[in-house]
Amino acid sequence: MKRTLHLAVAQMGPIQKNHTRSEVVARLSELMRDAAARGARWITFPELTLTTFFPRWALEDPAEVHAYFEREMPGKETQPLFDLARKLGVGFYLGYAELDGDRQFNTSILVDRGEIIGKYRKIHIPGDAEPQEGYPIQHLEKKYFLVGDLGFPVYEAPEARIGMCICNDRRWPETYRVMGLQSVDVVMVGYNTPIAYGRRGEPAHLPFLHNHLSLQASAYQNTCWVAAAAKAGVEEGIPMIGGSCIVAPTGEIAVQALSEDDEVINYVCDLDMANGYRSNIFNFARHRRPEHYQAIVERVGAEPTSL
Amino acid sequence: MKRTLHLAVAQMGPIQKNHTRSEVVARLSELMRDAAARGARWITFPELTLTTFFPRWALEDPAEVHAYFEREMPGKETQPLFDLARKLGVGFYLGYAELDGDRQFNTSILVDRGEIIGKYRKIHIPGDAEPQEGYPIQHLEKKYFLVGDLGFPVYEAPEARIGMCICNDRRWPETYRVMGLQSVDVVMVGYNTPIAYGRRGEPAHLPFLHNHLSLQASAYQNTCWVAAAAKAGVEEGIPMIGGSCIVAPTGEIAVQALSEDDEVINYVCDLDMANGYRSNIFNFARHRRPEHYQAIVERVGAEPTSL
Repeated sequence: MKRTLHLAVAQMGPIQKNHTRSEVVARLSELMRDAAARGARWITFPELTLTTFFPRWALEDPAEVHAYFEREMPGKETQPLFDLARKLGVGFYLGYAELDGDRQFNTSILVDRGEIIGKYRKIHIPGDAEPQEGYPIQHLEKKYFLVGDLGFPVYEAPEARIGMCICNDRRWPETYRVMGLQSVDVVMVGYNTPIAYGRRGEPAHLPFLHNHLSLQASAYQNTCWVAAAAKAGVEEGIPMIGGSCIVAPTGEIAVQALSEDDEVINYVCDLDMANGYRSNIFNFARHRRPEHYQAIVERVGAEPTSL
Repeated sequence: MKRTLHLAVAQMGPIQKNHTRSEVVARLSELMRDAAARGARWITFPELTLTTFFPRWALEDPAEVHAYFEREMPGKETQPLFDLARKLGVGFYLGYAELDGDRQFNTSILVDRGEIIGKYRKIHIPGDAEPQEGYPIQHLEKKYFLVGDLGFPVYEAPEARIGMCICNDRRWPETYRVMGLQSVDVVMVGYNTPIAYGRRGEPAHLPFLHNHLSLQASAYQNTCWVAAAAKAGVEEGIPMIGGSCIVAPTGEIAVQALSEDDEVINYVCDLDMANGYRSNIFNFARHRRPEHYQAIVERVGAEPTSL
């Protein structure tokens, strides 16, 4: 009998600045009910799901900044989502801004039927610490978030080994490889990706290609399923890509969201699909040659000098 | 003024067992003349370009095996190709089976206007050392080739920093990352990829997806051009994929071969296209976090245990 896991991804439309946590949690709850009604066992929500994507602004007032962060999880406004998940018997990935003492992280958690079973803090923080001239939009994540300090952990959920990453992490092959080496079955990732950020003058079609290309290649190269959830649509005047999807270990997109709004997609994933690759072409133990990979940990930046 | 480099890829149709080196070199020369006439400066030829893809057979007679290998490069039969390249003022990547004393490698060289300026020996040797039951075709590279001992060097050619890899190497993100960390501008790769090898029962469309997916994601993630040359068509009864292409640092396929035969494709590559990415989203020095990548060199195989 196939070892299957029914995954859902809950893409979200924009969350504007004046939307309250309670309004957002009501939308998340609706999406969770939809996914559960289809039979999904796990639901991936986006990055920084509870508020608008505030790192587009340079905020100086600490009180204004901290209003976007969660001091406890679940908190008063998020407790209903945990309760609903317990009632429905589902698990979920949720991204949020975490305030831990005075440390700020871009965080995701894995919650199984109301209990937190895993946490990840974003490692590849993109953008800048100060506003940059010449960019059509600002992306100030380095102003607000420390580099994650939890590595890339993989958690033993009841049906599968689940790992997490957040947004820009998905473009870095190291992210998935560290999880692939822990035999990850499913990687969940939430993202907020504005159009026209990657490089100055970048053609507008490229962020869509880059999103799927990164997700598909890494699913294939690490023989895992990837469940990717966007916050999409025009948020505070900034258009963001959708393209939420569930990718198979074949590198194929099994299902994708076609809207730029709140939308659930789901797929019954065959967790054994990876086995053929893991025993042959991607049998890491037989084929990997770390003695030739040292530069990956020894060199940080790219240098025009030979090793 | 843009810093451009005119690249060509010379895909080859099948080379059967009874084809002589001289016949093959005549085909390579014809392809080289075609590429040079279009104005190309560098030409990528396939993996194991000089003979049929012999690792599909379990050969036991050392003389029969060694007949597929080159003891010197250039040798008597390959010298005309070097002479032609000097005359035409072009450089090329050539894959061949190398006999170095009694050591056998799957090798490629970088030849600039008749002079060898770089060598690479394939590191990710796929397949098996002995025939395997249950596979529709055999792939016995581990029987014939040692793991390469030269790392992933990047060579300073006059116009660009050029790196090489061979066939299965292109599926492994470590391959390109080690070269990306050396600011590689162009990665050249030759391949022989039979349909229906990756895993038992794999649908026939997947090898085509996996080829482009691996090439495109790695070009994007390492901000380099990739020039990929297939040996295609039905060789000794075994169908192999074509899909030779030149991929941009945007991850886009700039040009691709549509035949399964000898065919030249070419593109004038903007080497500065990478700069926008290298200074922002893929500024490795600012964003990479090797302290969280240790598993990539410390763990060889995948293990269902957390780090």
